[in-house]
Amino acid sequence: MMGAKVAILMGSVSDSGVMQETAKILDDFGVPYDMKVLSAHRTPGPTQQYAQAAESNGIHVLIAGAGAAAHLAGALAAHSTLPVIGVPLDSSSLGGFDALLSTVQMPGGIPVATMAIGKAGARNAGLFAVQILGRSDASLVKKLQAYREKMRQDILAIEL
Amino acid sequence: MMGAKVAILMGSVSDSGVMQETAKILDDFGVPYDMKVLSAHRTPGPTQQYAQAAESNGIHVLIAGAGAAAHLAGALAAHSTLPVIGVPLDSSSLGGFDALLSTVQMPGGIPVATMAIGKAGARNAGLFAVQILGRSDASLVKKLQAYREKMRQDILAIEL
Amino acid sequence: MMGAKVAILMGSVSDSGVMQETAKILDDFGVPYDMKVLSAHRTPGPTQQYAQAAESNGIHVLIAGAGAAAHLAGALAAHSTLPVIGVPLDSSSLGGFDALLSTVQMPGGIPVATMAIGKAGARNAGLFAVQILGRSDASLVKKLQAYREKMRQDILAIEL
Amino acid sequence: MMGAKVAILMGSVSDSGVMQETAKILDDFGVPYDMKVLSAHRTPGPTQQYAQAAESNGIHVLIAGAGAAAHLAGALAAHSTLPVIGVPLDSSSLGGFDALLSTVQMPGGIPVATMAIGKAGARNAGLFAVQILGRSDASLVKKLQAYREKMRQDILAIEL
Amino acid sequence: MMGAKVAILMGSVSDSGVMQETAKILDDFGVPYDMKVLSAHRTPGPTQQYAQAAESNGIHVLIAGAGAAAHLAGALAAHSTLPVIGVPLDSSSLGGFDALLSTVQMPGGIPVATMAIGKAGARNAGLFAVQILGRSDASLVKKLQAYREKMRQDILAIEL
Amino acid sequence: MMGAKVAILMGSVSDSGVMQETAKILDDFGVPYDMKVLSAHRTPGPTQQYAQAAESNGIHVLIAGAGAAAHLAGALAAHSTLPVIGVPLDSSSLGGFDALLSTVQMPGGIPVATMAIGKAGARNAGLFAVQILGRSDASLVKKLQAYREKMRQDILAIEL
Amino acid sequence: MMGAKVAILMGSVSDSGVMQETAKILDDFGVPYDMKVLSAHRTPGPTQQYAQAAESNGIHVLIAGAGAAAHLAGALAAHSTLPVIGVPLDSSSLGGFDALLSTVQMPGGIPVATMAIGKAGARNAGLFAVQILGRSDASLVKKLQAYREKMRQDILAIEL
Amino acid sequence: MMGAKVAILMGSVSDSGVMQETAKILDDFGVPYDMKVLSAHRTPGPTQQYAQAAESNGIHVLIAGAGAAAHLAGALAAHSTLPVIGVPLDSSSLGGFDALLSTVQMPGGIPVATMAIGKAGARNAGLFAVQILGRSDASLVKKLQAYREKMRQDILAIEL
Repeated sequence: MMGAKVAILMGSVSDSGVMQETAKILDDFGVPYDMKVLSAHRTPGPTQQYAQAAESNGIHVLIAGAGAAAHLAGALAAHSTLPVIGVPLDSSSLGGFDALLSTVQMPGGIPVATMAIGKAGARNAGLFAVQILGRSDASLVKKLQAYREKMRQDILAIEL
Repeated sequence: MMGAKVAILMGSVSDSGVMQETAKILDDFGVPYDMKVLSAHRTPGPTQQYAQAAESNGIHVLIAGAGAAAHLAGALAAHSTLPVIGVPLDSSSLGGFDALLSTVQMPGGIPVATMAIGKAGARNAGLFAVQILGRSDASLVKKLQAYREKMRQDILAIEL
Repeated sequence: MMGAKVAILMGSVSDSGVMQETAKILDDFGVPYDMKVLSAHRTPGPTQQYAQAAESNGIHVLIAGAGAAAHLAGALAAHSTLPVIGVPLDSSSLGGFDALLSTVQMPGGIPVATMAIGKAGARNAGLFAVQILGRSDASLVKKLQAYREKMRQDILAIEL
Repeated sequence: MMGAKVAILMGSVSDSGVMQETAKILDDFGVPYDMKVLSAHRTPGPTQQYAQAAESNGIHVLIAGAGAAAHLAGALAAHSTLPVIGVPLDSSSLGGFDALLSTVQMPGGIPVATMAIGKAGARNAGLFAVQILGRSDASLVKKLQAYREKMRQDILAIEL
Repeated sequence: MMGAKVAILMGSVSDSGVMQETAKILDDFGVPYDMKVLSAHRTPGPTQQYAQAAESNGIHVLIAGAGAAAHLAGALAAHSTLPVIGVPLDSSSLGGFDALLSTVQMPGGIPVATMAIGKAGARNAGLFAVQILGRSDASLVKKLQAYREKMRQDILAIEL
Repeated sequence: MMGAKVAILMGSVSDSGVMQETAKILDDFGVPYDMKVLSAHRTPGPTQQYAQAAESNGIHVLIAGAGAAAHLAGALAAHSTLPVIGVPLDSSSLGGFDALLSTVQMPGGIPVATMAIGKAGARNAGLFAVQILGRSDASLVKKLQAYREKMRQDILAIEL
Repeated sequence: MMGAKVAILMGSVSDSGVMQETAKILDDFGVPYDMKVLSAHRTPGPTQQYAQAAESNGIHVLIAGAGAAAHLAGALAAHSTLPVIGVPLDSSSLGGFDALLSTVQMPGGIPVATMAIGKAGARNAGLFAVQILGRSDASLVKKLQAYREKMRQDILAIEL
Repeated sequence: MMGAKVAILMGSVSDSGVMQETAKILDDFGVPYDMKVLSAHRTPGPTQQYAQAAESNGIHVLIAGAGAAAHLAGALAAHSTLPVIGVPLDSSSLGGFDALLSTVQMPGGIPVATMAIGKAGARNAGLFAVQILGRSDASLVKKLQAYREKMRQDILAIEL
């Protein structure tokens, strides 16, 4: 994870289509990231090691996308005091509702910043990571403002 | 956990009222157990160590009661091939619905045997542990049959 | 059900695609099983007889997959003290949510070990049956550990 | 159940407060009934026997009140071709939602006529039984019309 | 509705595919029926007139299939003391959940016998109507028993 | 309903505590109203007559509060082209969720303007009626602006 | 928005397929409208300006269609005392359920008249706007009555 | 908001009991904050001005607690590129479920970091703000580690 400031982790390779949305945002903002499949349940050891080493490896924000009983974000949060962003994914028959509650209803003491279910949430996870990094990097704030302005112009330009 | 065959773990001390129902069942069946508060999120290290050492410590079944984004049962299951029984608890404003989905919707590969929300589930967790132990202890099967017969007689004796 | 140690039952022939996942797991672990369509509502007599005879026929674990008002697991549990594993199936317009609640919310006294909705749950039902059998068969525990290790390696080998 | 035309069954003695509403309605209409606690899961044998004997015992309608994974109505329906009315009860932390889905989502072939959750449903179960009996007893239809007229007058007489 | 004993009503012509399941059952049992599109909201007058005239037109059971804020069964029940059976249909984006609650949660005084959402419910509505008619027609009870026996044999004949 | 411009109807006398919130708002704005208990299911005739006569009686807006399978607003809307506002009430064990879906999910052709569940919705029903009347009465618009300004000042004056 | 009496706003260009249903209704009734994409979150400034200027621009009713955390209707309502109609759209994995709750559960003081999710709701938003305008334009009331009569005739003409 | 690094905003004075949990955490970590009641719907102007001025006033993180159709966090996020944390509150009859979906299901482009419903979420909002500030203040990271260690010790010290 040489040079990466953000980690994009996901519970299964089938989640990578959605989590690419996070990567695209970070690419757009020029933020280096490390992207990996790690499972809270199937690779608990490497997940824990990743979380514990992240800060000293230069990571500032951990992003986790997972479906169903989505514990990945919570597992990372249990092993690090870095900000952890959770993206609930729609990968069971319950429309992502299970992943949302498993990610957001964290107990007092161990927060996970939960985004919307699916692609909108994956995109916003990237943006929120940039917003956090922006607290100590004014150039990112400028880029965020430009991103917003473009979004605004795009909407206002629509002719129905 | 000297001599214990079953572990009763719970995510918070406030869960102990409900999880006593599990203990009462195991007491009734004469099954020794170890009971402890351990949190998937707040004490991840000791939780993992407990799960990893359980089998060699003589434990046959792990029972975990937790509320909200209830990850305790899943965290134990990630670190042990012992049967893990999950009891979702009603400790948020969502009636235990969050705990149910967080416990039951486990990914393929790492099962958690989920019981009903709250006291009925806690009682059944104890009974299900006895049913598992009964697979290699015929005396427990007899006790289960007697327990069922008593339950049956109690219901049939009711006069409305 | 000659020689079978596990029964895989399902409420309808249309459930067999999902419940094959359970069979595949048991095949992988070399555990003999009996697989049958039996309905709590449409064949209550044979369902009851199956449950009552299961233990003396050498069955150690009953697995039931059913959708909608899924009562099959509960009906088996009412007639046997063997461990019963329920797999809620997504066969109505409610995403398996009805089957989940009908399977998991059992009253105190008669537990059903509920798995996730659909294929993940079917696979886990097989694994959980192996975990139960593993309590008196150390060779199965070894196979479970190898299965986990393979799963772990497969995930860690993924290149995004 | 000498002379009874309707059976009022319930899964637990704690359900009797709500199911008294059914009894009151039948008392008001002069319909004799038999009232009993019988559980689909805890007394499956007596439940089945009751259902199988009901028609020859003169019963025309079976009413079942149950909470959580409410299988009582379905179990009766599996063993009888008499009309079965189900009343889902609010006895878990999910507001009766589990009982509603467990009662109403019956598979094709075995209907259960489901009423509202709780007291309103218990009252309506009694009225619906009277409506069924009314198909071959014109005096009950007259009483139903009088009951409706009284209800109508009571509402129209309200001064806010 | 000459000679019809059962009315099959539905809120929209798009519901007729599902409600044909009811018609098929009544055809199988030789029960004459009247089938019509009538809306609680869009044709309230004809709906009310149909309900009020039904009994004197020889109808014994009213069946109503409707989706979304499904009021058709309730509207019929408000205008008749005949048994009304409601079939919630899955015609919005909520999986029939809205139709289920709109149909089943009737206030005390005006029952609607609610069936499962969709085709299973439509089939069961036909069977339940036959069960009601069976209370004064022993030949229908025999047919119901034969229907059940065939269903039983069909399931037991399945080879997986 | 002499001189009334708005009708406040409710399905049961037990709803009057909540629906007083609507009355208070109309009192505050000096809008005369008629308030009555009328049930879609228990007094369908008077409900229909009320709706049909409302416009010629000078009513401009119909407001209906009801719980459970809340059909009152829809029944009024079926019989009038006046704007109908529905207030779902929390009167079953489902937290008003049933009333919300029964009120809001109206079929294309017959709109009901649905407000929030309970007291907030009852208050807003009154305000929305005033907003409708404001379209042809500028004095009401001024009062609405003053009401908003007061609300704004009240919030800004809060010292925590 | 020259001459427009109604505004049809939507949060995203992808909502325009559904919101065309509103436009079609207003076209049918000869009511001029202005249609635009405006987002509560992505173009908050123009949204606010639109709402604040609407009344003096001759707009009488604001209609807003939005999905997910649908805040558009609420944002308009916060900045205008014109009647605001909200149409929740099904644009996430939760079937429009999120949009429904975000639109309807407005706090006391700021009402949004919520319609059904999706196309039925979009159509009804147009009709409800016409009903409001009808309070000061009798010709629209006649057209509404004709529209209802045609709908009625269309249904009664259906032959199954 | 002199010197404040975090803003704690809430939609209503009745939310202050829960949002004090956020304040307590910030007090414990020695992080200065500004606490205020501001409503997305009832004081939209001041809410917008607060959000727009926050960054230049030295605020690094905006925290918003709101119930029902909880738009406060989204409204702040629409007007600022600072990180916004949303705390859904349980203030309607739906257990906070409406507030959760209104807060978390934000459209792509405008993230809100959503915490658990109620007190656990309020506490975690404070901790997450500290985690963000910790990205450029190592002393806060040390305090976070000490906080975690204390939490860990407290749990491990529990004797059941």
